[in-house]
Order: sequence, then C-alpha cells, then structure tokens
Amino acid sequence: MAGLSTRHLLGIKDLNPADIQLIFETADNFKTVLNRPIKKVPSLRDVTIANIFFENSTRTRLSFELAERRLSADTINFAASSSSVSKGETLIDTVNNILAMKVDMVVMRHPYAGAGIFLSKHVKAQIVNAGDGAHEHPTQALLDAFSIREKLGDVAGKKVVIVGDILHSRVALSNILCLKQLGAEVMVCGPTTLIPKYIGSLGVRVEHNLVKALNWCDVANMLRIQLERQDIKYFPSLREYTMLYGLNKQILDSLDKEIIVMHPGPINRGVEITSDVADSKQSIILDQVENGVAIRMAVLFLLAGQTP
Amino acid sequence: MAGLSTRHLLGIKDLNPADIQLIFETADNFKTVLNRPIKKVPSLRDVTIANIFFENSTRTRLSFELAERRLSADTINFAASSSSVSKGETLIDTVNNILAMKVDMVVMRHPYAGAGIFLSKHVKAQIVNAGDGAHEHPTQALLDAFSIREKLGDVAGKKVVIVGDILHSRVALSNILCLKQLGAEVMVCGPTTLIPKYIGSLGVRVEHNLVKALNWCDVANMLRIQLERQDIKYFPSLREYTMLYGLNKQILDSLDKEIIVMHPGPINRGVEITSDVADSKQSIILDQVENGVAIRMAVLFLLAGQTP
Amino acid sequence: MAGLSTRHLLGIKDLNPADIQLIFETADNFKTVLNRPIKKVPSLRDVTIANIFFENSTRTRLSFELAERRLSADTINFAASSSSVSKGETLIDTVNNILAMKVDMVVMRHPYAGAGIFLSKHVKAQIVNAGDGAHEHPTQALLDAFSIREKLGDVAGKKVVIVGDILHSRVALSNILCLKQLGAEVMVCGPTTLIPKYIGSLGVRVEHNLVKALNWCDVANMLRIQLERQDIKYFPSLREYTMLYGLNKQILDSLDKEIIVMHPGPINRGVEITSDVADSKQSIILDQVENGVAIRMAVLFLLAGQTP
Repeated sequence: MAGLSTRHLLGIKDLNPADIQLIFETADNFKTVLNRPIKKVPSLRDVTIANIFFENSTRTRLSFELAERRLSADTINFAASSSSVSKGETLIDTVNNILAMKVDMVVMRHPYAGAGIFLSKHVKAQIVNAGDGAHEHPTQALLDAFSIREKLGDVAGKKVVIVGDILHSRVALSNILCLKQLGAEVMVCGPTTLIPKYIGSLGVRVEHNLVKALNWCDVANMLRIQLERQDIKYFPSLREYTMLYGLNKQILDSLDKEIIVMHPGPINRGVEITSDVADSKQSIILDQVENGVAIRMAVLFLLAGQTP
Repeated sequence: MAGLSTRHLLGIKDLNPADIQLIFETADNFKTVLNRPIKKVPSLRDVTIANIFFENSTRTRLSFELAERRLSADTINFAASSSSVSKGETLIDTVNNILAMKVDMVVMRHPYAGAGIFLSKHVKAQIVNAGDGAHEHPTQALLDAFSIREKLGDVAGKKVVIVGDILHSRVALSNILCLKQLGAEVMVCGPTTLIPKYIGSLGVRVEHNLVKALNWCDVANMLRIQLERQDIKYFPSLREYTMLYGLNKQILDSLDKEIIVMHPGPINRGVEITSDVADSKQSIILDQVENGVAIRMAVLFLLAGQTP
Repeated sequence: MAGLSTRHLLGIKDLNPADIQLIFETADNFKTVLNRPIKKVPSLRDVTIANIFFENSTRTRLSFELAERRLSADTINFAASSSSVSKGETLIDTVNNILAMKVDMVVMRHPYAGAGIFLSKHVKAQIVNAGDGAHEHPTQALLDAFSIREKLGDVAGKKVVIVGDILHSRVALSNILCLKQLGAEVMVCGPTTLIPKYIGSLGVRVEHNLVKALNWCDVANMLRIQLERQDIKYFPSLREYTMLYGLNKQILDSLDKEIIVMHPGPINRGVEITSDVADSKQSIILDQVENGVAIRMAVLFLLAGQTP
C-alpha cells in the first residue's frame, strides 16, 4: 500500500490530494470500528505518543487522546501549565527530554505559528500539529472536509463559505488549503478588518455580505469568535458582529436552498449562530466532532507506518 | 438477572430497595475481586466512560477512576479548569461534544444542584451523578450504607445520626434517602442554622445536643465542615462548632455502648472529630474509602448492562 | 535471586553497594526492552501505583509514569494543586485514603525533607521518594551513576565534580551518597554561600574555582540554579554566578582532557552551561533522561518483588 508523502503532519501544505484521499479512506474504515461494540484496534500498540499542549484545549486533546486509545497506543500527556516550561526551559529541550524517554510521536498544540515546523527540524520524532497559533490546524481541516464529503458525497465542485475572523484563524487557513486541493470553490466572509490582505493569493472569493455569501454556497462554516486572539481596536463590537455575521434561523430559512451549517466549536450560542441553527437538521456540528476521532486515528495510523 | 430500575444514577431518588440490594450484592462480589492479586475484570472493556469534574475532588474522582480501571473500561478525564467551559460553552454543548466522540457513560460532578438531571434529559449517554451542588451524592450514600451493613450485618432497624452541616450537604441528603429506604432510623444533629427547614418532611428526627444524639444512635456519621459552602453570618464560629459538635475520645468513651464512627472525608482533624477518634477501632472511615471502589464498580457495571 | 535490602526507596541511604549493583543490572535488561519495537513487559500487571506529586515536576513524573506503563502497572495520578490538600487534610490521611483504594506503591514528591520517611512509618504501602525538599532524590542519583558507568565502564575510581548550589540540592546529596558507595572520588564546587557546613563529614573535596575543579575531574555534573529554593541575600547574582560557575565551550576546550558533562535538567541555557556545551559530544544529558526510565523500571520492579 502506498503511504503518505510526509513523515509529519505540520499543515495541510504537507499533503497532496492523494494523501488526503488515503486519509479519508482510512478514516472510513476507522469510523466503522468506532461504531462497533468494541471500538479498539491493536494497530499502534507498539507506539508511544506524547500529547504536548502548550495551550488549553478540550475537544482537540480529548479527540486525539481517544484516537490514540482506540489504536491501542501508549500515551503520555503534558500540559504546559504544570511543566518545566515555567522553569525557563526551551521548547526543544522540553521535547527532546520527552523524546529521550523513547516517545515515537508528538501531538503538539502551541500558541506560536510555526512551532511544529521548527520542532520537526530539530527532533527525531514525528510531529502532528494540533494547532500552532494563527497558522494551521490540519486535522480540523481534514475532519471538516471529510464531514462535507460524508454529507454531500464529494467535496469537488462544492461551494464552501468560511464566515468570521479569517485573519486570526488557523482553522480558516487549513480549511482553505484543504478544500482547494480537493477541488471545492471557497469564499471567505467577514468584516474587512478580519480578512487578511494576502487572501487573494489563496484563490478564494471574498464577500462582506453574509446573506449574499450564504446564497452562493452549499456549505457555511461559521468560525468561532475568539476574543482572546483579536486586536480590540479594529474589531466590530460583539453586538455588531452578531448583527452583521451571526447566522439565525430566519436567514437560514430565507435562502433558496438547504445549505449545510458547520462550526469547529466551542460554539458561542447567540454570537456566531443561534441555538435553533446549531441544533437544526442542516447542522452537522456533532458529525464533525465524531469524524474528528476517525480522522485523527487515520492520521496517526498512516504516519506511524512511515519508515523513518 | 433482573437489572436496575433506572438507566442513570442521578440520585438515591432513582433507586428502589431492590436496586440498592442488587448494588450491594454486586459490590460484595467486586470486593472479593479487589482483594485478589489481580484486581481486574474485563467486564466493561467495550465501554468508554468520561469523568467530567466541574469541581475539584480527589477521593471521588480517584475512586471512580480506579473502579473504571478495575472493570477494564476506557476512560477519559475532563477537568473544568482546563476546559472549554471557560470559553463560554454551554454544559450541554460540552457534554454533547464528548458524547459525539462515542462515549457511553458520563460520571459528572457539578457545583449546581440538578446538573445531572438536566443533562440526562438532553443527551443520550448514561449519567452517574458524582455530586451536584448541595443536592445529591448517591454513590457516597450507597458506600456509607454498604459499610454499615458490612459492620453491623444489616441496615434495617439501625439508628444512624448524621452530625454537622445538614443544610449544605449533598452527602446528608443522599444518606437520609438511602438509609430510610433500607429501614434505618435516621436523626440529624447540628446547630439550628445548619438544619434545613424541610427536614421534617423527610421523616428524620432532629437533635441539637450532640451527646443526646450519640447516646441514641448505633452509628454516627460526622460530616465535614465545608467552610466554602456556608453563609458566614449565620454560622457558629469554627471554635464554637468544635466545642458543641466536635466528637472527641472523652465523649465517645462516656457513651453507654460502642457506636460506629463514620466520616465522608477529607477529615478536618480536631474540628469534626479528633485524631484519636478518627484512628480508633470504632472508626470505619478507611473501610468507607475501600468500599467506595467496590460500590462504584457495581453501579457502573449494573448501569452498563441496562439496554438503552 | 537475591532482592534489595529495603522495602522502600526513601534515599540512597537505604541502599548498599550490592543493592545498587542489582538495580544497575536490572536496568541494563530493561534498557534493551526500551529499545525493542514493543517496549512493554507484563511484570507489574498486578500492581497499582499512585504517583503523588505535591510539587510540580515534568520530567520526573513523566519518567516514572512511562516506567510504570512499560511494566504494565496500573497507575493513578494525584497532583496536589487539584487535591484535598488545599482542603486541610493531613498528608497521612491523604495517602491512607489512596491506599484504602488498594494501591500497592506510592511514588511521592514532596516539598518537605523527610516526607517519604515519615510516610513509610505510618502507611503500609511501599514508598518511592521522587524528591523530598532539599533532602534526597535517589532515582536521580542512580540514573546519574548508571549513566557514568555506561559511558566510562565503571564508577569506581572516577573523579566526579558536582557544580552549583550544593546547599539546597537533593540531587547533590543523593549523588554524593551514591557515588561514594560506588567508589568514586567526589568534589563539590560552588560559592561558599551555597556549600553546606557539614560537607566535610560526607568525605568530599571542596573547590571554589571552577577551572581547577574541571581540571581535576572526569565528569562534571552541572546543577540547575533553582532560584525558588534560595535565600536571595547570600546568593551571588545570576550574572555573577554565570561568570564564576557557568560552563562554556571555551573553558571546556581549554581543559587537558575530554571530561563528561551532565545536567539533571531542566537546563537554564546560558546560566549553568551554554548551549554549545549542552549540545556537545561530551554532554550525556539526554542519555541521563533515557536511562531514567530504565532505572525507574528497575527500582519499581525490584521493590515490587519484596515480600511485605
């Protein structure tokens, strides 16, 4: 069987369409495993994985942890707050120490863009980027595209709009790169202050009017407003944001067709989307979460199969 | 085999005497397992349990975790402080996300009374209440009654006094409900300010004098003083409380008969009880802890056998 | 097979040379296990170990946890910050409660010297000291001596200098005791304010000049400067310390022979040692980390074999 073209998953940039296809097909298999009474396979019982989270995260950490358990890997968890990081140790020293304990793979979330790339050049272990600053969050993009494929049969040719703070979002960037590779048409929608200047170079459309964007698309991915990542001065107030870019049932029902609604979570109900939209039949938000475990199993399984 | 009459364990209110009997008999079996060199059974190896603690807890969390390990369940731990909760997510969204990762059961501690009940109405997983505010803590009551049964042969007909802050105690309420179901006579003892107004409706006696209460009972359950849960204004000072309601060896030895002393822990030595009482032969405090694992194994095992 | 002469590992003081030899030979075996594709042995699958850390620690906790996993032990983790300790419970009550849950061994780090010894006299479980205040850190000393033996063939007759804050260091004390037992010559080097008065009674040399010390030794163990443990008034400033006792490449290259450089981590790069020294061929810092898991496996395995 052909493997992935990469030893690490630092970003969607590392993957070609064949890689993504292979990840999806592997995730299809694991999804059937996850729906069996015994949800475990012994595939990675000889692999030790360190989950190193320099930023808090519930769903991503739990999702990776469950994926690792389902694959029978040995795992160790490391949270920055209770760590040597506060004692002034460098990132490379921290990780090298963990690796000296014979760890095979590192799943890392870090507040700085490029932390995973930097690390992959300095340590021997395989690195899976679980989010690096405002840069990439590749497994999120893979599970999002996988969920679209599951719902609509294919990603190619579909129209996807990503709504919200594109500038500070690693989810947006990874999604754009992944969807473009798979042949989707991508649009971003948000206030000018939250759309990066370089967006044109990524080959995506820009639309500042939410209703126009929704009328164009098959799928709307409503990003979470992350107040902690934003420069308050340029940002519309939360109330303004919700008025201009919040998705409610009235807007959803006024569209010509039934679009699909996605959200990477955690949801600010009443801000990006209202509760009736989040809980509507058009929402595939919980499918995204469920698919996250299968996608992460596939990524870990395929990477572990790469010869060093 | 007949199962429990409930899919969830939200409170002792969910159980009838036959349920409690079944839990005790199952715990008897598991207690022999826990005293074997290999303390594990494969019973729940196809079950994934999420331990979701919105409040800190050492003994309850460790006890549940050990019970789950002994049953070979897969477990994931989620502490509120390191979670999306601080990002403004609702309780239902948090739990639904965890459940979308194919979790079968949720063991939850929450600072609000009724959190477990609320949750059980909105998510599909089975819920075990590990303490909800000042409401219920059913596994504590079960392990307390089980420890009395173990020591005295039976709970029916025994006289049990619960001493301390009845008003703010989930342990007191669950104990009263459990002991009454099993046919014990129950008395509460404490300062007027810490006895709830509705106490009469529960069919328990009230006594404000500790020595009188102890002379009446077979078993004294000395509750922990939880300063964090009390309205300082109405409360006797800690020194006054200890003078009036603290149990010391002198009082214990002055009683006509050898009563049994219990405490749900953690003990404030020198406040509710003195060290010589806590460490005396009449104390079954560490038996309570040991029985906690067996009782929790029984609860998880029996609930997992319920068809959805 | 002869076992250890002790049921607990509270300090190097508990061990005789034959014990240390047995630990090293057992660690040799486990090191080969750690380099196999499947790094696990079923040796302790009937043992439950509680890791109780009253102080933060990354590397020691992870190293013990991995050692326990590799031995197939069941483990539970307990961190003081999220514990009953803040509720005023005594150390013995905390540990007795954990033991009542049928835990066989306790690995404990505690800020107070003697905490492990105190505990071993009051509870039935076997105690492994993972660092108690400024007193002892026996597994660190064992892995340090094991790493010297691995690199130089033997410890006997070798000259080892320990550089830094000897006064507040449990690593220094345990290292001195271990190296002396194994027949090494030991010197300590640091400012007068950081050398304890009783140092002469341990049979070690004292040198205040770093270059003289390095010219004497075969091995230099550069301790971490732990600002949190020091009395600011007596201490040279960090800048002065680095000028007088920091090891840089220029000094290292000026020596007559190739000495070996060790560091217990985490490294303050540019304080105790510069980056080029830490990453040089003469540094065995990462070997120390790797050997830590093997040594801890050996200690846990051998202690578990002791009859109560």
